[in-house]
Amino acid sequence: MDLLKTTIGQIVAQDSGFRDKARTRLEQLTMPYWALGRLMDLAVDLAGMTRSMNPKVERRAVVTMAADHGVAAEGVSRYPQEVTLQMVHNFVNGGAGINALARVANARVVVVDMGVAGDLSELSQAGRIITKRVGSGTQNMICGPAMTREQAVRCLEAGIEVAFDLGAGTDIFGTGDMGIGNTTSASAVVAAITAKSVETVTGRGTGIENGQLHHKVEMIEKSLAVNKPDPDDGLDVLSKVGGFEIGGIAGLVLGAAAMRRPVILDGFPATAGALIARCLAPLSADYMIAAHKSVECGHQAMLAHLGKTPLLDLDLRLGEGTGAALAMTLVEAAARILTEVATFDEAAVSKAKG
Amino acid sequence: MDLLKTTIGQIVAQDSGFRDKARTRLEQLTMPYWALGRLMDLAVDLAGMTRSMNPKVERRAVVTMAADHGVAAEGVSRYPQEVTLQMVHNFVNGGAGINALARVANARVVVVDMGVAGDLSELSQAGRIITKRVGSGTQNMICGPAMTREQAVRCLEAGIEVAFDLGAGTDIFGTGDMGIGNTTSASAVVAAITAKSVETVTGRGTGIENGQLHHKVEMIEKSLAVNKPDPDDGLDVLSKVGGFEIGGIAGLVLGAAAMRRPVILDGFPATAGALIARCLAPLSADYMIAAHKSVECGHQAMLAHLGKTPLLDLDLRLGEGTGAALAMTLVEAAARILTEVATFDEAAVSKAKG
Repeated sequence: MDLLKTTIGQIVAQDSGFRDKARTRLEQLTMPYWALGRLMDLAVDLAGMTRSMNPKVERRAVVTMAADHGVAAEGVSRYPQEVTLQMVHNFVNGGAGINALARVANARVVVVDMGVAGDLSELSQAGRIITKRVGSGTQNMICGPAMTREQAVRCLEAGIEVAFDLGAGTDIFGTGDMGIGNTTSASAVVAAITAKSVETVTGRGTGIENGQLHHKVEMIEKSLAVNKPDPDDGLDVLSKVGGFEIGGIAGLVLGAAAMRRPVILDGFPATAGALIARCLAPLSADYMIAAHKSVECGHQAMLAHLGKTPLLDLDLRLGEGTGAALAMTLVEAAARILTEVATFDEAAVSKAKG
Repeated sequence: MDLLKTTIGQIVAQDSGFRDKARTRLEQLTMPYWALGRLMDLAVDLAGMTRSMNPKVERRAVVTMAADHGVAAEGVSRYPQEVTLQMVHNFVNGGAGINALARVANARVVVVDMGVAGDLSELSQAGRIITKRVGSGTQNMICGPAMTREQAVRCLEAGIEVAFDLGAGTDIFGTGDMGIGNTTSASAVVAAITAKSVETVTGRGTGIENGQLHHKVEMIEKSLAVNKPDPDDGLDVLSKVGGFEIGGIAGLVLGAAAMRRPVILDGFPATAGALIARCLAPLSADYMIAAHKSVECGHQAMLAHLGKTPLLDLDLRLGEGTGAALAMTLVEAAARILTEVATFDEAAVSKAKG
């Protein structure tokens, strides 16, 4: 609990002085006023986060956290639970979507076992994954809490540790998730925190049909009725209807925010982690960048709650950190606009009339 | 005229066999069905364009074409005409928005003087720009045609030549523009081709206020009334209300399509060039990728006419090829999804149930 408390205590708002300084420079660049639109907004954010007019975003890591979910036993996914384990191997072997997109972004993929139901000890011993197992999958949240409050703290502190350990060599973080059943958990988290109806924040996840979707909504409603998570207590929400990887991602976000580094949110389960982080430390939202708007219908409610407008809208619904990886080059673009584009005076270009 | 005719004759549709083959592979990747959404649509397009399951997009060039516009004398821009010339120097010195964003995309910036009103001979002799001057700015289109039909052909053939010359070392092209007054010309082009009212396709360009916008609309209406461009004749539209850089971009698109290489459309003036290209060779649209949706209100009408959905929507309104550069990494992502992600069988991951 100490690490969590200390970390939350270190999180402060973006620096308004650097925001102003960045805005002033951006207004003088050789282009019509704010002609690079949202990239310029992002450049202001980067300056405010990093307290620098030369925000570093070169060393990039997408942290993909994997865990299993007890609620998968209720038949809420199109895929069997073993896929979580199999996909961890796929990540390590470089064959997954996130591997391809991280190469585009020139980012490392760091895979964390937060609690996969299966044996990953070989990959762990070989140093190919980080092991922070909090359990072998969560409990089934329709019967009671997904995890204990102590386990929730361990998830969060594990995520913080990962952020701090990577911090020496990482300027910018991306969040990623893998866990069969985790959109069910993410829907429960967003319903609990925003008080939206379960139906409006529950989507098809891996691609379930109408009947299964109806069942999924019922299971989520049951989990909320059984557990009654307290929307003002992030630890309560996480422990009752969350997941180990969602807690790990929440911790990663807190750790990044404490280090004043930007952290890019990915899709629906990853953004559920960001919701937990914001619940525990509202100012952590100052360090979040929303990569994209997921196909998953509850994602927009999450982003609205966080006050974030996504950079991309490409009908993605994969997770793993793929959207975060795609957005990393846009963040690089924003940083370069701030640092590499000449002002009217520097380039001797005539200014606007009148 | 021979080069134009031959080039148009070489443009054929995307290959449906390679599209099908790509779709089949993408459906087997280790992810829920089509979970990378529009990037997977784009991967199908790339296979269809390049006739390859391994579409190459490594060698990238943003071609930024600059020219001046006689209509600038009517006070349609916030900036003086000399800015076109000054910005060419800025491009060559690496200080403009396009330079910063091309670095993100790992793309070359190739600057072409299509007819800037000013002396660029030093840069030309030093080999720092390509010179294809068709004139020293167009004529004022509110008094008559912006250029002769012969000049329109020269613009187009110049663009084709640039595409072919770069072709040996370029897998993918981005289009860019620079020219004070060119959103006025682009609005006239889209109004002429789509028969939309001038008011609905005319925006603030570099950021003019309401009064100046009203005047701009009047000038465009006058140019159309005076010239009566034939919407079915791309050469007629280009010569009467186009611009040298818009024609050059149209030629570049035709050249890229003839070589079966993808070409990324940028903002409003660059997409006006694409409209001319499609008018001359409808199948050239098969090789176009729409980078982004510009703030400029007529851009959406252009993209709808071309049947394109933009990849990005970031409130950009700079031009120069900046949006095209940003989209290049998304195109790389699409290619890597097709070639680098493992199938369920390859990675031994369990498939969906039922």
